[in-house]
Amino acid sequence: MRNVPVVWSEASLLHDPGAEVWVGVPMQGTEVAERVTVIRDALVAAGAELVPATGHDETVLHAVHDPDFVMHMATIHDAWMGAGFKELVGQDRVVPYVFPTEALLGGLPLRTPTAIHGRAGRYGYDTMTLIGPGSWAAMRGAVDAALTAVDLVRGAAAGPAVRVAYALCRPPGHHATPSGYGGSCYLNNAAVAAEGLRRTGAAKVAIVDIDAHHGNGTQAIFYDRSDVYYGSLHVDPGAGWFPHYVGYAEERGRGAGTGSNRNLPLAEGTGDDGWLAALTEIVTEVSEFEPQALVVSLGVDAALDDPESPLRVSRDGYHRAGVLLGELGIPTVAVQEGGYHLPTLGGLVVATLTGLAS
Amino acid sequence: MRNVPVVWSEASLLHDPGAEVWVGVPMQGTEVAERVTVIRDALVAAGAELVPATGHDETVLHAVHDPDFVMHMATIHDAWMGAGFKELVGQDRVVPYVFPTEALLGGLPLRTPTAIHGRAGRYGYDTMTLIGPGSWAAMRGAVDAALTAVDLVRGAAAGPAVRVAYALCRPPGHHATPSGYGGSCYLNNAAVAAEGLRRTGAAKVAIVDIDAHHGNGTQAIFYDRSDVYYGSLHVDPGAGWFPHYVGYAEERGRGAGTGSNRNLPLAEGTGDDGWLAALTEIVTEVSEFEPQALVVSLGVDAALDDPESPLRVSRDGYHRAGVLLGELGIPTVAVQEGGYHLPTLGGLVVATLTGLAS
Repeated sequence: MRNVPVVWSEASLLHDPGAEVWVGVPMQGTEVAERVTVIRDALVAAGAELVPATGHDETVLHAVHDPDFVMHMATIHDAWMGAGFKELVGQDRVVPYVFPTEALLGGLPLRTPTAIHGRAGRYGYDTMTLIGPGSWAAMRGAVDAALTAVDLVRGAAAGPAVRVAYALCRPPGHHATPSGYGGSCYLNNAAVAAEGLRRTGAAKVAIVDIDAHHGNGTQAIFYDRSDVYYGSLHVDPGAGWFPHYVGYAEERGRGAGTGSNRNLPLAEGTGDDGWLAALTEIVTEVSEFEPQALVVSLGVDAALDDPESPLRVSRDGYHRAGVLLGELGIPTVAVQEGGYHLPTLGGLVVATLTGLAS
Repeated sequence: MRNVPVVWSEASLLHDPGAEVWVGVPMQGTEVAERVTVIRDALVAAGAELVPATGHDETVLHAVHDPDFVMHMATIHDAWMGAGFKELVGQDRVVPYVFPTEALLGGLPLRTPTAIHGRAGRYGYDTMTLIGPGSWAAMRGAVDAALTAVDLVRGAAAGPAVRVAYALCRPPGHHATPSGYGGSCYLNNAAVAAEGLRRTGAAKVAIVDIDAHHGNGTQAIFYDRSDVYYGSLHVDPGAGWFPHYVGYAEERGRGAGTGSNRNLPLAEGTGDDGWLAALTEIVTEVSEFEPQALVVSLGVDAALDDPESPLRVSRDGYHRAGVLLGELGIPTVAVQEGGYHLPTLGGLVVATLTGLAS
């Protein structure tokens, strides 16, 4: 693991959503700060070097997200507190309650509501992705971690360029769309990494998303572009899994992006064989795409013990996935996405990165 | 009040949302069954005759709502209980958690998710409109009440035709869109009444919505039609009020419906003078539209004491509104919408209907 620098931001520990509101019930979520510490400790024990994330400006962030959305994320918690929701109803986290679906809008143009409680649903598309006092610092730190990892593979940070760098991002990002957040994701770290690699010499970048859930945000950000390929293997949303509305096989890109988006939905219960066969299919397509750089959306929630998905991938399966992706042999930024089973989380990440850098 | 039959359905008492989930916090709502009993008792005390709603088939209901949406409303609670959400997280009411806004869909076609908890947000656009065991019976009973009131002004029920009939509907309906529910509304009783009047002899029907909130559902149902006028006075959604995204002055209808939709948003604190001036403007436009029948969306939550709006209309103001609308002199179905201040609710409805039938 000495050849894979691990970028992280102390700020990642500041994000405390406090709860998830799921079907109207506030409950303890699994996207907790301890995820970072167990992964970090496992990587350090495996010999990895920790690299603090360095600050980066908004150039790349604003290329993948609407700046109005970014401004909303930066300011909404202060606005929420200032508007007195904590005193009014005891809620010191931002949670939307009304959502401008087509069922509400009926073809009218989308406005940004005046009221903060109305505006929250303009950008947030679920009730399980709460914004608390440290959330902005954490999400912005995760973006900096992704961009610092890009610097490392470009040789733009201290020391020579490495082939593989890993950004221990929290909160995760792949459900964050150009102007929307949800699924415990706020800003899209993987998309930021891909755009950062594009702007530092790669004419084409591939993103391979091995998180158990479809990365609808990453897909949406690059859906119309031919220069960034997005491939994902994930539990079939049609079998009843998040994000429910997106992540189907027929989503192949649009306009110039047609053909550079690939979804391989997997049946519940899929284990190593089916999962690695799907990954092989995507890696083959990536080879044909001929990218100069790779981003891996590294979610380890497809693992057998993970509480958030019904896939059954082993630690060895994750290692072999790393090997398959590493064989592409191109500069690679791995970005942490999901993974919620604290006892096994660190080992799964170590196994994957060991394969990736082998 | 002897000349205004009051149609109601016992089933209206069966709807018990149990709570509203507002900004992630389950709290006691104000749309309670006691609303019906206090209005009913005040009307009976004022000499009104109670008429039980009679059953009507789906013909008119399916003309204003997507039949798939109606089927969802009829079946979702049973499906929810069958899927075990009560056992799983203690939630025996249907509450969505993920919503297919454009921020989520990114231009992809809208699907109906497989999972019940995913599907709930396909139709429900907020978290404050819960569906419990008696909800379907109540909402369907409210539709029957509206259609029975239509029968009464048409002379299609027992006895001669009356000029004004009142449907004591609960739950209210004017936020229910062609395929969406929210704002404590499930099926659009006023739209059903208007469509019922269209199908029984009126070439043109006007709907005047005096509820404190914009009736975005009714607007959406008739937005493209020239045969049904919709006019609403309501607290300005731009000042921070529900439905936040819809209800603005520039929404004037679309296609064939251009010009037959009219919104007069009012500033917070508007009292009798401003409110009645706006109503006069709408009544003038209704006269010019020359409808053969009228539907009044009778919400009394614009009243001074109501907890759900910042308007300050007096009981006398409501009486004068009734007079203004009654002077149109055409067959009229008044449909109960909002109104949440239990001590004054009955008197406000009596005052309005007395004016309407004078």
